[in-house]
This record gives sequence, C-alpha cells and structure tokens, in this order.
Amino acid sequence: MVNVAVLGYGVVGSGVVEVIKKNGSSISKRAGEEITVKKVLDIRDFKDSPDQEILTKNSEDVFEDDSISIVVETIGGIGVAYEFTKRALKLKKHVVTSNKELVATHGPELLRLAKEMGVKYLFEASVGGGIPIIRPLYQCLAANEINGITGILNGTTNYILTQMKREGKDFAVALKGAQDNGYAEADPTADIEGHDACRKIAILSSIAYNEFVDYKHIYTEGITKITLNDMKYADEMDSVIKLIAMSMKINDKIFARVTPAIISKSHPLANVEDVFNAIVVKGDAIGDAMFYGRGAGKLPTASAVVADVIDIVKHVETRGKSTWTVTEENNTVHINDVETKYFIRIKVRNQEEAHKYINKTFGSVEWVKVYDAQLEDEIAFVTLKDKERNLKALLEEMKGIGSIREVTNVIRVLEE
Amino acid sequence: MVNVAVLGYGVVGSGVVEVIKKNGSSISKRAGEEITVKKVLDIRDFKDSPDQEILTKNSEDVFEDDSISIVVETIGGIGVAYEFTKRALKLKKHVVTSNKELVATHGPELLRLAKEMGVKYLFEASVGGGIPIIRPLYQCLAANEINGITGILNGTTNYILTQMKREGKDFAVALKGAQDNGYAEADPTADIEGHDACRKIAILSSIAYNEFVDYKHIYTEGITKITLNDMKYADEMDSVIKLIAMSMKINDKIFARVTPAIISKSHPLANVEDVFNAIVVKGDAIGDAMFYGRGAGKLPTASAVVADVIDIVKHVETRGKSTWTVTEENNTVHINDVETKYFIRIKVRNQEEAHKYINKTFGSVEWVKVYDAQLEDEIAFVTLKDKERNLKALLEEMKGIGSIREVTNVIRVLEE
Repeated sequence: MVNVAVLGYGVVGSGVVEVIKKNGSSISKRAGEEITVKKVLDIRDFKDSPDQEILTKNSEDVFEDDSISIVVETIGGIGVAYEFTKRALKLKKHVVTSNKELVATHGPELLRLAKEMGVKYLFEASVGGGIPIIRPLYQCLAANEINGITGILNGTTNYILTQMKREGKDFAVALKGAQDNGYAEADPTADIEGHDACRKIAILSSIAYNEFVDYKHIYTEGITKITLNDMKYADEMDSVIKLIAMSMKINDKIFARVTPAIISKSHPLANVEDVFNAIVVKGDAIGDAMFYGRGAGKLPTASAVVADVIDIVKHVETRGKSTWTVTEENNTVHINDVETKYFIRIKVRNQEEAHKYINKTFGSVEWVKVYDAQLEDEIAFVTLKDKERNLKALLEEMKGIGSIREVTNVIRVLEE
Repeated sequence: MVNVAVLGYGVVGSGVVEVIKKNGSSISKRAGEEITVKKVLDIRDFKDSPDQEILTKNSEDVFEDDSISIVVETIGGIGVAYEFTKRALKLKKHVVTSNKELVATHGPELLRLAKEMGVKYLFEASVGGGIPIIRPLYQCLAANEINGITGILNGTTNYILTQMKREGKDFAVALKGAQDNGYAEADPTADIEGHDACRKIAILSSIAYNEFVDYKHIYTEGITKITLNDMKYADEMDSVIKLIAMSMKINDKIFARVTPAIISKSHPLANVEDVFNAIVVKGDAIGDAMFYGRGAGKLPTASAVVADVIDIVKHVETRGKSTWTVTEENNTVHINDVETKYFIRIKVRNQEEAHKYINKTFGSVEWVKVYDAQLEDEIAFVTLKDKERNLKALLEEMKGIGSIREVTNVIRVLEE
C-alpha cells in the first residue's frame, strides 16, 4: 500500500482525492499497488467535506508520518508551497505538483534536491491541465530533436478571445463573462497579462531543449489591447487572433515569447476554442504533433496529477529524476533580435501621404482593408519579416510624420 | 552499449536506421546507454544504400547474435513477421514493431510470450504513425476510466476526402492523385475499404478497455461510396465527411466501428486534413483529449519506433509487459444493436408522396436541402437516433414503396 498526502484542499487538491477515490480499483490495478490518500493538509475548515476524517491543519501529520511516501502539492504560489516541497523532498518523499509558478521559479533547485535524495519531483499537471504533454515530451518524442513549441496555454484568455470573436463582445464584457462563469479570477492579471502562459512555456522549453529557461527572460504581452476591430482585420486575413506562447532554438540559444498573434485559420491552433488548450511540438523526425484538451479544471488537472503518482508507484524511470542545466549566461535570445511579420493599424490625417510614407519606409507591405465605416481614417498592413528592434525604430520615427495621427495597434503575425 | 537489429529495410525500417544515426548522441544521452543498429535484415539488394555494412540477408546474423538485445520488426504482414517475432521473443530479445496487422491479429499471444520470456513487445508505431497515443493511453491517462475513442486513423482516406472536399475531385480522381503522390498504394483496398483503420481501432480499444478486441468483430465500411454530392449535403449541415474509427463501452461490452461519418465542423476532428491523423480519447476525469500528427511516413513512424527502443533501454516499466485478457465469448456489441442517427438520400418518383411516407415511417426527421439542379428528383434527411437493425428493416420496406425510386446513400451522423 502506498500512502499519499495532499497539501491544499482547493480545486485541484480536492479533485485528486476525488479521482483516487472514484477510480481507486483500476488505478491500484494499473499501479500494481493500492494507492490511498492518508492525509489532506489545509488550514481552512471544510465542515461539509466528505473527507473530514483525513483532513488536518497540522503539517506534522504529513511530514512526521513515515508511511506517507508521496506528497501532492496543490497549494500554489512560491511561499508555503516552496517550503513544504523542500521539506518533503529532504524527507525523501516524492513530490507531485500542479504548481507552474513554483516549477518555473525554483525548478532547477527542486529537481536537483530530488535527485540528491533519490526521489522524484514530477509536474505533468503544471502545464496544459489534463493534457499529457510533459511525459510525451520526455518519452514519446525522445528520438527527436525538438525545434519548436507553439501553444495556446491559457484557458481564460482563450475563452475571452473566443467570446469576442463568436459573440462580438468587447474585451471588458468578455472578461466579466469569464469571471461570472468561473473561468477567470477576481484579479485576472496573471491570465490576461500572459504571466500564466509565460510560466508554462518556460517549463515546456526547459524540457524540450534540456536546459532551464528563466521565465524572466521571456517577453510577455497580454490580450488587454486586443479589440473587436483587430478581429475584423484578422478575419479579413482569413486568420484569427490567439494568445500564443512559443519558443524555438535559434542557433544555440533559445527564443521564447508570449504575445497575441494573428494565425491563419488553417493552422491547427486556430480552431482551439473556449477554455481548451493545445500545444504543437515540432520535432525533426515526427514533424508537427499536437496535444489538445482541457487546460484547467478540477478533474482534468487531477487526472494529470494522479498519472504522476501512478508513475512513481510503478517505479517508472522518467527524466523527472534528471535535472535542468542552468547556464551562467543568459541562454535566451532577446525579442529585439528576432524577425517576424507585424500587422499594423494606423490612424491617418492624410491617407495618400501616409500610404506613400509606409510604402517608402516599410518596403513591400501587404495592405489589409475592412469595409466598415468606423475605420475610415485608418489604414492597416502587414510588414515583411523584420527584427523587432527595427520595427520599434520605425514606429518611433512615425511619431514625427505629419500624415500619421497615431499607431492604433501592432500585432505579430505567426507563420507556420 | 545496446545493439539493435532492424528486420525489413523498407520505408519505416530505413527510417529507424536514419533517425538512430542522425540523433544518435541525444538519443543515447536520453536512453542512458549508447544505441547502435548492428544488423539490418532484408532479402532484397540495396546496392546504393549507405547501410551496406550492416545489411544482411541471413536471419541467423540476427538471431544467433547474443549481443543483439532489441529487434525492430518493420516487415509488415502476418507471415514472416509473425515467425520472426516469436523467434526473437523466445530468444529473450525485446521486440518493437510498427506492424498493426500483426498486433491486431496475434497481439494477445505475442504479449503473453513476451511476458513469459521477461522481455517487452512494444508497438507505439502501429497506430497513428508518429503520434504518441499508445503510451499516453497506458500512462498519462492511467487515472481515468476510458469511455470512448474516436479517431481519424488512416491518412490515405483522409487525404482523398480532403481532396474531394477542397478541390471538388471525384473519388476516383482523388484516389489516382493519392497514388501519384505516394499516399496510396497500387492496391489501395486496405486503406479505402477501412481495413487499416479497423486494425488500429482494435489495438487502441484493446488498450483502453484492457481486453482484447478482435478486429473481425468490428463493423467496417470504407469511403468508396462517398460522392461529391454527399459532401454538398454535409456542407449544408455545417459538417464534413470523414472516415471515423470509434469505439465505446456499452454496459460491460465494447462497441467499435469504422465508417464514413458526417461530423460537425465544430468537432475537433473536422479540421484534421490531408494525411494527418488524430485521436480523441474520452476519459472520465480528463474529458476529451486529442492527439494529432502525421499518421504515417518514414521519419514520423521511425520516431515512434525509436521512442519504444529508448523506453526498453531505460528499463521503463510499461504495461507493454502486461497481457490482454482474451474473453471466450464475443465481448463486442453488434452494430445492429447500437443506436445512431443516419443521413439518407433518396431518389423519388413523387416528391409529395415520398415526403409523406418518410414522415410517417421515420417520425420527426430533419430535412436537408441542397440548391443544386442535378438533385431535383432527390430528397434527403437525417433520422432520429435508431438502432441499425431497425434502420435496415425500414430501408428494406422502402423498396416496395411506389413513390421511392431508390436509396442513393446512407451515412451515419456522428454525435459529439
């Protein structure tokens, strides 16, 4: 019999208890041993919980119990969760988590500690909720050099963008709706500003390229500036706007960014709607493979956590035991040095002059027109590929051009 | 050092050699040991092959070499491949294969033999080419009860259907194009009649429900009867036509079928085009998860084969060592006893009479109209859910109805 303790009885923690109870017999069969949740640690009261008997407020009930060999950390954040994880690992307890913030921040240290202690630190649930992505990256694609990852990694923003596109709601209205439906938190900053997706692409990139990618080096831009008019232009380009987290190898360095992006409707990510997530992995042998599913939610996330627990019980050899190389120097490429295409909307004072100026400055651009009255003093176009550094200089220069009133928005265009 | 022998130097076999050569250093790093292809067995001559030194026509070079611990079988079929697999397993060599026909036919026996001999028989590449699906089913979704699988499992037919829809080509023309492009074989029967997809859904179902599903019990219908007119109707229903392999649990039995199906454009499988494959797995915790990628081809399939080889070298504990329960009684539900909706096209002698008859006999059907002259003596509708047995009786009865000339086509409608 294997005893598990769950730290944090929130959405994911209670889901883990539920899944282990519900599918207990088949889970035990698959693991080869019976798996039981012996303790659930939470400082809050849960008077009506069916798990009354195993709930405790005393962390010693977990740490001093030698019969507990696996700790599931679903507290979140990098405070108590960090301390408890270290303590559990030092006591040679395996730790399984859904905590992307902790993994993205202290992953290298915790993986090293786990290795030293001869136990595992697994975090399949930290990215993509229930979607199997970390284990496939480690195992199924092991024959490949990974060249790139492109994903929709945040369900809240994808729900908001889907509502805007499908229902024609403004960003603010769509956000409110997401909050009312429980898809966005009261303080939605981490989601709508892209911070959540940033942590996740940092984790995926660290695995794919086998060296730690510090999320602080990842350029991150949220969706708060995306408007319905932007979406009309995207539609005219036979495209949609998604919050895209991506990373790729450029020479021996890693480039990663999280930004809204215009992507063609024929791209497999274009049809990922509502709270669903999806991740496209480019491998040199497999080509493009996509993993799709519910990126959040109680039971899907619990499904991924419990899969990690089963792996530990089965003594599956995983690279969870290996550590991430931490480079002394910054191993990432700055966004300024990376080329992409940009979609640019400009309010003009003089159409003809502005057109002339853009053609002269940007070279051969692709003009985009939306037949809608409210946009009549506006022009819009897609640039050739250029470095972000050069684009910024051009945008700066535009401020001094009389025919141009202001730049309304700049959105990156994702190429296949 | 781990020595591998590859049996069969065809598309997949040569791909395996290529991938191990190309990504050798990172593969060895991930596996923890150096992996080398020591012998490649094929009775044919390959004068210009770069692998001249390791090619042999003598099977004893593989079987009598004790230093070869892993055999990759990419011969295909159930003749020599079956004999060689048994011989390798009896000699306590692990076997990895992409041979769906062999796994679907002799899987239970070969898994049992592997278990007896303490070695593994792995076949990730037998379904979905490079797409990781078998390992995720065993491992990542281990916390779930699997309720159903729905997939596009054959790239050739998906390419043909995509060409018909996108380019307006007839089936015969699209098939010819697929053959010219190397996506269909000279004898395309196994693909276009659904036999290939049938073997694959048999394998996936055996894993998902943990008991052997004999492909001979799976109702299988190919795409040869699908016309451009059918596609026009599907489009009118905001749907597309795909060759869908599916299975589900019905009470304690398993139902599986391979048929063309009309699926809504909002279904995640609707956008899977060209030679791509995708598999949607329904788990009770995860909800729907989809796996998407290249379902065939040299390097993608080799990628999956080599991932299995790496797992063996890493001594990853997988359920590849476990066996499939074989039930004495037929463990499947006959298609006659399963309910679904049907799209039916009928040529009529008398519109009004035929409408009346259909309404009376089928109850509340949903009429579908396509505004196209050539279809003027035709009516089409979608039935309510009914058992296949009842549908067949109704279709039989129709033959005696004067207002109806003939039934043009019947296509099942896939519900979400």
